[in-house]
Amino acid sequence: MNDAATISRKAEFPGLLTGEGKPWHYLDTAATAQKPQVVIDAVTRAIGADYATVHRGVYSRSAEMTLGYEAARRRVAEFVGGAEDEIVFTRGATEAINLVAQSWGLTQLESSDRILISELEHHSNIVPWQLLRDRIGFAIDVCPLTDDGLIDLDAAERMLTKDHKLVAFAHVSNVLGSVLDVRRAADMAHAVGAKLLLDGCQAVPRLPVDVAVLGCDFYAFSGHKLYGPTGIGALWARREILDAMPPWQGGGAMIDRVTFEKTSYAPPPQRFEAGTPAIVETLGLAVACDYVSSIGLDAIHAHEARLVAQLREELRGMNDVTLFGPEESAGIVSFAMDGVHPHDLGTILDEEGVAIRAGHHCAQPLMDRLGVPATARASFGIYSDEDDVAALLRGIERTKRIFG
Amino acid sequence: MNDAATISRKAEFPGLLTGEGKPWHYLDTAATAQKPQVVIDAVTRAIGADYATVHRGVYSRSAEMTLGYEAARRRVAEFVGGAEDEIVFTRGATEAINLVAQSWGLTQLESSDRILISELEHHSNIVPWQLLRDRIGFAIDVCPLTDDGLIDLDAAERMLTKDHKLVAFAHVSNVLGSVLDVRRAADMAHAVGAKLLLDGCQAVPRLPVDVAVLGCDFYAFSGHKLYGPTGIGALWARREILDAMPPWQGGGAMIDRVTFEKTSYAPPPQRFEAGTPAIVETLGLAVACDYVSSIGLDAIHAHEARLVAQLREELRGMNDVTLFGPEESAGIVSFAMDGVHPHDLGTILDEEGVAIRAGHHCAQPLMDRLGVPATARASFGIYSDEDDVAALLRGIERTKRIFG
Repeated sequence: MNDAATISRKAEFPGLLTGEGKPWHYLDTAATAQKPQVVIDAVTRAIGADYATVHRGVYSRSAEMTLGYEAARRRVAEFVGGAEDEIVFTRGATEAINLVAQSWGLTQLESSDRILISELEHHSNIVPWQLLRDRIGFAIDVCPLTDDGLIDLDAAERMLTKDHKLVAFAHVSNVLGSVLDVRRAADMAHAVGAKLLLDGCQAVPRLPVDVAVLGCDFYAFSGHKLYGPTGIGALWARREILDAMPPWQGGGAMIDRVTFEKTSYAPPPQRFEAGTPAIVETLGLAVACDYVSSIGLDAIHAHEARLVAQLREELRGMNDVTLFGPEESAGIVSFAMDGVHPHDLGTILDEEGVAIRAGHHCAQPLMDRLGVPATARASFGIYSDEDDVAALLRGIERTKRIFG
Repeated sequence: MNDAATISRKAEFPGLLTGEGKPWHYLDTAATAQKPQVVIDAVTRAIGADYATVHRGVYSRSAEMTLGYEAARRRVAEFVGGAEDEIVFTRGATEAINLVAQSWGLTQLESSDRILISELEHHSNIVPWQLLRDRIGFAIDVCPLTDDGLIDLDAAERMLTKDHKLVAFAHVSNVLGSVLDVRRAADMAHAVGAKLLLDGCQAVPRLPVDVAVLGCDFYAFSGHKLYGPTGIGALWARREILDAMPPWQGGGAMIDRVTFEKTSYAPPPQRFEAGTPAIVETLGLAVACDYVSSIGLDAIHAHEARLVAQLREELRGMNDVTLFGPEESAGIVSFAMDGVHPHDLGTILDEEGVAIRAGHHCAQPLMDRLGVPATARASFGIYSDEDDVAALLRGIERTKRIFG
């Protein structure tokens, strides 16, 4: 994407203007992505002129909606390289990981087992395992990080034993942008007989993802970080694993036959989709996949890498700024300014029309590891450009003058 | 609502036109309601020009979105007569009931306990209890129905014992439209020390609901049946009950402090809202509450009661039609035609631009009770009118000629 292409792309995102119609320098795409007009239009159409329920109606509009819903499942499956019947729609990555914990984990893990997570995980890939551990009693081991903020796979290799049944890692860190060497993690997990779960929230909008190539067993991601609607996400899991998983939530659409004596359940993925699904959101997510694919994840990754390199270079030149994470970050830069709380920086930047995230980023253990209560985080997306970086740097300079 | 008002109201719903721009006689509102333009506009705005995440951003648009999100919680709480901190947002009623089962139920029910449900429950108020029963081992008793399809509260009174910890009933049956005498059910449940859970899916769009007046302990409902977006619903529960409930899903936003040693949780309702919520949908639901309130649930109920009476009167005059359910039905009429499978009726009606539901309506045990594999169901909404009833009757007459 050259600059001209980037500038024209901004116009496709109505969220990128301030209330006064001025450009908004949105650098919080790792929290949630703004939506292109095609996604907004798809949502408006699905909730309006095309609206109907799925799976149950004998009338044609409901049949069409059902076709659209299942086409969306195929589209999302294709987007991550999985099969259609391996995609379970969830509210987001958080629900996807909780589903794995409370269905697969509850039946597969025993008190003598261990699982391995890492020090950089988002709370959504820590707390579901702690809640399950509190019920079952297995051990949770924590893989340390390298000094530049990657999951230390050498350490992981030393830690893994035959007692480990699961390795659960972020594909891309939401704080540091660190990219996991998934092939190596998969080989290490499988060598001891463990499954590999990936939190793919930050990866799917930033890197080409193909679960067959990656070799993982579970892949969880959210729609709203992928330029799609809120309230929708997906779990991909190998068919044979899904087949063996018991239902988690009960209700309509996930059953085969209900009697008060005995209820039997539908095969996956329906077994895990109780109740009326997020119909409109699912259709919107499929359009988001189309949109992202039409640009190409290689191009998006290269574009964001260029902005990351530029921003890190500028920040490195400031002697009162600490940079976190690896040089090769996927679209995310975390930093701290001496003597300025990240929240204060965020507030001043807001006055300049620049939006960053300041806080623990739902990764308090990582903050403990970094030795800070919070970081400032700038994260890029399809629509980010040099103007956004320049506006951020101007805001940082102004903050220095205020606090200097 | 007089006819003129009704006709003008149809124009507010873009979903009520066929692809060719002709009127669509949508009589499947009990499956899902069409959306008024104000709800569609709210969704389009929230996912577009106003879009940001909630709870975490230090920039003003995220702060505004957070205010909107929490205002939506207040609005939904007010809509059902609860307090703001008693509303947990869920994907829908199904997830709300599963939350009660897997959080409250898992910690409060023991193998020697009993719960009471009824013969007319939707699968979403049967299967979550069966899944929990399979883990804990308590007994599920089933309250029979009166001959006209009401939950037989005389029978319930005889069945309830001190072993019963929960009574879980539909406020309005999704198949028969039967309205529960909630005050009596609440008194009976409380007399033996049981809690009362109501599946309010079909009630909130059709009757004034005030949980304080009803005296229930849990109230579950979906947004998409209340003229709001898909992917959003709510659980109302008494504050002291929520306080005592452990977390169900783990992740961001539901924690107080996370370490690898010990994690502490946020107070309700946040404790039960792990991960990025369905932000856009929540704002849309609040607007749907405004819309429904502006018409008034007494007026809506009277309007639907008039259409029910008219349709039942016409169907009663046909000697080859069986009518199910009570005369005083809340907006829903189930029936069967001798010698015509409901699916065939539904298909022929579809050709006439009339949408009904044909099937088991996610209530297979009720079908067993009625002695049919399926029923045809016509259900009304705010926008329904005599033209819709007339179109349905014309379609039934045509079906008779085809099958006659």
